[in-house]
Amino acid sequence: MAKNNQVTQITSMEQDFAQWYTDVCTKAELVDYSGVKGLFILRPYGYAIWENIMGVLDRKFKETGHENVSMPMLIPESLLQKEKDHVEGFAPECAWVTMGGNEELPERLCVRPTSETLFCDHWKNVLHSWRDLPMLYNQWCSVMRWEKTTRPFLRGREFLWQEGHTLHATEQEAREETLRMLEIYADCCENYLAMPVIRGNKTEKEKFAGAVNTYTIECMMHDHKALQSGTSHYFGDGFARAFGITFQDKTNQAAYPHQTSWGLSTRTIGGLIMTHGDDRGLVLPPRVAPTQVIVLPIAAHKPGVTEAAEKIVERLKAAGIRVKGDFSDNSPGWKYSEYEMKGVPLRLEIGPRDLENNQAVAVRRDNQEKTFLSLDELESTVPALLETVQQALFDKAKANLDSHIWPAATVEEVKEKAMDGFVKTMWCGDTACEEKMKELAGVSSRCIPFQQEKLGDVCPCCGRPAKKMVIWGIAY
Amino acid sequence: MAKNNQVTQITSMEQDFAQWYTDVCTKAELVDYSGVKGLFILRPYGYAIWENIMGVLDRKFKETGHENVSMPMLIPESLLQKEKDHVEGFAPECAWVTMGGNEELPERLCVRPTSETLFCDHWKNVLHSWRDLPMLYNQWCSVMRWEKTTRPFLRGREFLWQEGHTLHATEQEAREETLRMLEIYADCCENYLAMPVIRGNKTEKEKFAGAVNTYTIECMMHDHKALQSGTSHYFGDGFARAFGITFQDKTNQAAYPHQTSWGLSTRTIGGLIMTHGDDRGLVLPPRVAPTQVIVLPIAAHKPGVTEAAEKIVERLKAAGIRVKGDFSDNSPGWKYSEYEMKGVPLRLEIGPRDLENNQAVAVRRDNQEKTFLSLDELESTVPALLETVQQALFDKAKANLDSHIWPAATVEEVKEKAMDGFVKTMWCGDTACEEKMKELAGVSSRCIPFQQEKLGDVCPCCGRPAKKMVIWGIAY
Repeated sequence: MAKNNQVTQITSMEQDFAQWYTDVCTKAELVDYSGVKGLFILRPYGYAIWENIMGVLDRKFKETGHENVSMPMLIPESLLQKEKDHVEGFAPECAWVTMGGNEELPERLCVRPTSETLFCDHWKNVLHSWRDLPMLYNQWCSVMRWEKTTRPFLRGREFLWQEGHTLHATEQEAREETLRMLEIYADCCENYLAMPVIRGNKTEKEKFAGAVNTYTIECMMHDHKALQSGTSHYFGDGFARAFGITFQDKTNQAAYPHQTSWGLSTRTIGGLIMTHGDDRGLVLPPRVAPTQVIVLPIAAHKPGVTEAAEKIVERLKAAGIRVKGDFSDNSPGWKYSEYEMKGVPLRLEIGPRDLENNQAVAVRRDNQEKTFLSLDELESTVPALLETVQQALFDKAKANLDSHIWPAATVEEVKEKAMDGFVKTMWCGDTACEEKMKELAGVSSRCIPFQQEKLGDVCPCCGRPAKKMVIWGIAY
Repeated sequence: MAKNNQVTQITSMEQDFAQWYTDVCTKAELVDYSGVKGLFILRPYGYAIWENIMGVLDRKFKETGHENVSMPMLIPESLLQKEKDHVEGFAPECAWVTMGGNEELPERLCVRPTSETLFCDHWKNVLHSWRDLPMLYNQWCSVMRWEKTTRPFLRGREFLWQEGHTLHATEQEAREETLRMLEIYADCCENYLAMPVIRGNKTEKEKFAGAVNTYTIECMMHDHKALQSGTSHYFGDGFARAFGITFQDKTNQAAYPHQTSWGLSTRTIGGLIMTHGDDRGLVLPPRVAPTQVIVLPIAAHKPGVTEAAEKIVERLKAAGIRVKGDFSDNSPGWKYSEYEMKGVPLRLEIGPRDLENNQAVAVRRDNQEKTFLSLDELESTVPALLETVQQALFDKAKANLDSHIWPAATVEEVKEKAMDGFVKTMWCGDTACEEKMKELAGVSSRCIPFQQEKLGDVCPCCGRPAKKMVIWGIAY
């Protein structure tokens, strides 16, 4: 029996944004909940988005000389403890393996929350000479952080990510690497995920446990909250000293290498949902959409319609487009809502009338706009339309970001504006003021943006001379 | 300072095959040992081989309609226990997470040794109608089995693999799937890894915990021992019943689906090493070699040599070949042994004399054969030579296999021949006789091959009428 015309119901964004988000995650068949809180199942459609993101990044990593490796998933407690700041940051949320088979382990092992310590332990063995540098490594894996509150993609006790780890002979090289990788993340977000970013430094308070500097890209969601979408860390030689990693430099002296790490996770899929989605469900940018075009025959029983639709699928596939046809006996109404829910960027319909007119009807997911496309030129018009959708999604998100960053000169102003977007203020640089801002205005510092502005002379918290402009926000 | 001419020393195969194997794993920079026994680090060169194997299989999986997913890495103990045979097989070697942060967990969670139970738990939620079938899923991940003895690639407490899991409306469909995937593994082994396989059924004793049937591909290593290189399981509806997975069939009746799973792991890299390697180190089949061709300038300081070598690298890269040039100031002797150790299939040398003669010298890794190649035709001659090497490796391995399978009619004969290869005998089908063969002849049943022969009428263990021919061997 065909599925009926009933539209899948989801909560509206207006009514309850958090519930809308969860509804989209499950109704678009991106995730399922497992029996363990915070451990999510990425269903085929959700994982296919991640595969496309991986494809983009992996290519860029390799183009910039990085090699993939695989580190163990377990870290001995003693190894995790070698770098003091690092263990303080991560130990409280580790999951611990204490039994192997029926035997208690002599030392408990944590499921990696991140792998700096493992890379360092390996490098200690294999780094000898300046000739071995730089070491430019990456791994695709999942990591575990035993969080209290969890949400699909945004905060999981386990999540998929890549973690890059590199060693360099000099500070300058390592710092260049840190920024190079941030730029790759920014490019991936802006040009593939259609999510405009703000690039900046994290404050001392917000930086990664054990890092000298943490750089970040911050995105604004539809509800004007912030999502940290990728971070890149410069470690100096702190880990190298803690782990005893040295190399013989060109003058035959033992030296400590400089280190970086950088990560981007399935969180970005949460970002995609909350940046582009609407009350009909998911809206996917064509460049990362698992299915870019869905082809639907209308009145499929009429002579020639099914064949024409099949032909379109075949032609678009040959043109390198990720296309599917739905030839099931489900009603058109059911199909419309199904592929809208799944955020397929473009729907192509073809019925008897279209066949007569040698055309197909293209309907954009992002704005429901209809276009009639001649059947003769689909190989060029469809990709062009997909690029138009890609750009339109970016432009809309950029407009949302640009129109919701507010300058403020007092803590009260920050508090008021923060309900409606990011707030930028001057700042003295003191962590005490950052904490005061959190306490009084309910915002965290998102970053010290690379693009600085001079909004005033003093810190709104303490009135002392300001050093930097900071962007504040309410973050996921 | 340039690295000197000293050849990296490894143990010879003749002297100590096990030590030779370990030497190749580390000296070819495939793996490093981590601080936890049985957890290995796949270094860039080792992981790059796995990436190539993943590339081959992932394409074939997708061509046959499979979709990738990501399941959690932890399984609640109660979930693992739902299928009786399954838990008996795996529980003794599980690693258990018992603490999350500072809190003891209410139920301990095992790090997945395999994910049948997780897939079943998910399917119970998402399977409704025959329209949802088949479900053709795969995941790339690592799994954990707390083994007593461990060796790089061959037996790790953690190893990388893919695990396919599928659900079907009928037994016939599921059985077809099981064999389809076995055939994909056989194709990957034979046509990419150049490892000839024997396809067959596992006996009741050797089958996967919880399976109705397990199919296997078995390979012969250089030392004539067996390596199980991929398995595919038909589960019937046993798991479906244990987990309560049903669907509405076309007649609106509730029915249990039929299930399969199939896996291939980084073990196959151990197989590559032990099938093709020699006393100079690794020998890689071109189709999965991370670097297919290494280009070396000879007397690089002479005019035009370096430029010519660079040009060759550029041209071969453009022709789609995985090529690298080594322009370091290490000695040619050092470079020869370095790339021989790493098993690069083809070395191209170009010196002043070659330049005069408009040629390069090609040296095959597998047999040291030299060929002079005109510089005008490298785009066609190099790929052809790589294919020749690929075929030669397969032929050599096939000859090794074919010349080391011995028929036997008595247990004593099996014991004697087993030191020198696989042994085939008739068998009554009784597990008691299989166990007797293990005890008296030191061999395990590798498989009941699809290609049966009639070697006699009776079982060599009990003298009762024989039902099948079995292949026995000493296995890794």
